Amino acid sequence: MSSPEPIIRSKQTETEVNGVSTQVICTEFSNYIFIVLTQYGKIGTLVSVTPDSRSNDISTSTISTKVLLGKDEPLTHVCAKNLATFVSQEAGNRPVLLGLALKDFSLEAIKQMKDAIKSCQVW
Amino acid sequence: MSSPEPIIRSKQTETEVNGVSTQVICTEFSNYIFIVLTQYGKIGTLVSVTPDSRSNDISTSTISTKVLLGKDEPLTHVCAKNLATFVSQEAGNRPVLLGLALKDFSLEAIKQMKDAIKSCQVW
Repeated sequence: MSSPEPIIRSKQTETEVNGVSTQVICTEFSNYIFIVLTQYGKIGTLVSVTPDSRSNDISTSTISTKVLLGKDEPLTHVCAKNLATFVSQEAGNRPVLLGLALKDFSLEAIKQMKDAIKSCQVW
Repeated sequence: MSSPEPIIRSKQTETEVNGVSTQVICTEFSNYIFIVLTQYGKIGTLVSVTPDSRSNDISTSTISTKVLLGKDEPLTHVCAKNLATFVSQEAGNRPVLLGLALKDFSLEAIKQMKDAIKSCQVW
């Protein structure tokens, strides 16, 4: 029953971000890139990051964020945009579904997490 | 940067359900089991399947379903309950986050999909 080659592409890594163990898992679906960034082992707050389909001009394109599960806090939207916009753009403007369970929301931490996401590129 | 052993347990399989190619991917988080069942390569309708925490008696326990992303149709809730209740119970009453992108919602198909989920047990 199992296929030898996985059809759904998924990559994960573990890295230290400012001394905190951080797991990243990225999975590609045809209509979404699914990314979980967790420092607690939880799936965390689930946020959809969606490019504005009305805009064709990348220089004026906007990204909207929506919390689907968990606490809806302004910082979550900022982090989600910061972490996932480049993924959406690189993946042909696909939306990103992002799970965030983070202790550290500093700019330096976000930068390191973006590098971890890049190392798990599935798009 | 990559760890040799993945920390987040994830398994996937591909199977034929009534002649339709079906991918299943199951991933374990500490607070959720994440399962995608897809016959389109999409993540599909995202449903949270949550056991009722007020009930301690398994014989009277209830499960609630909520569509987080996608079309909110009665059939989705029925299928989600049918597919994920046993996972939640086996995983110590953990909630299940379920992505469903299905062509075939027949009882026979659901039964085969449950077997596919069992073959990707990560809980």
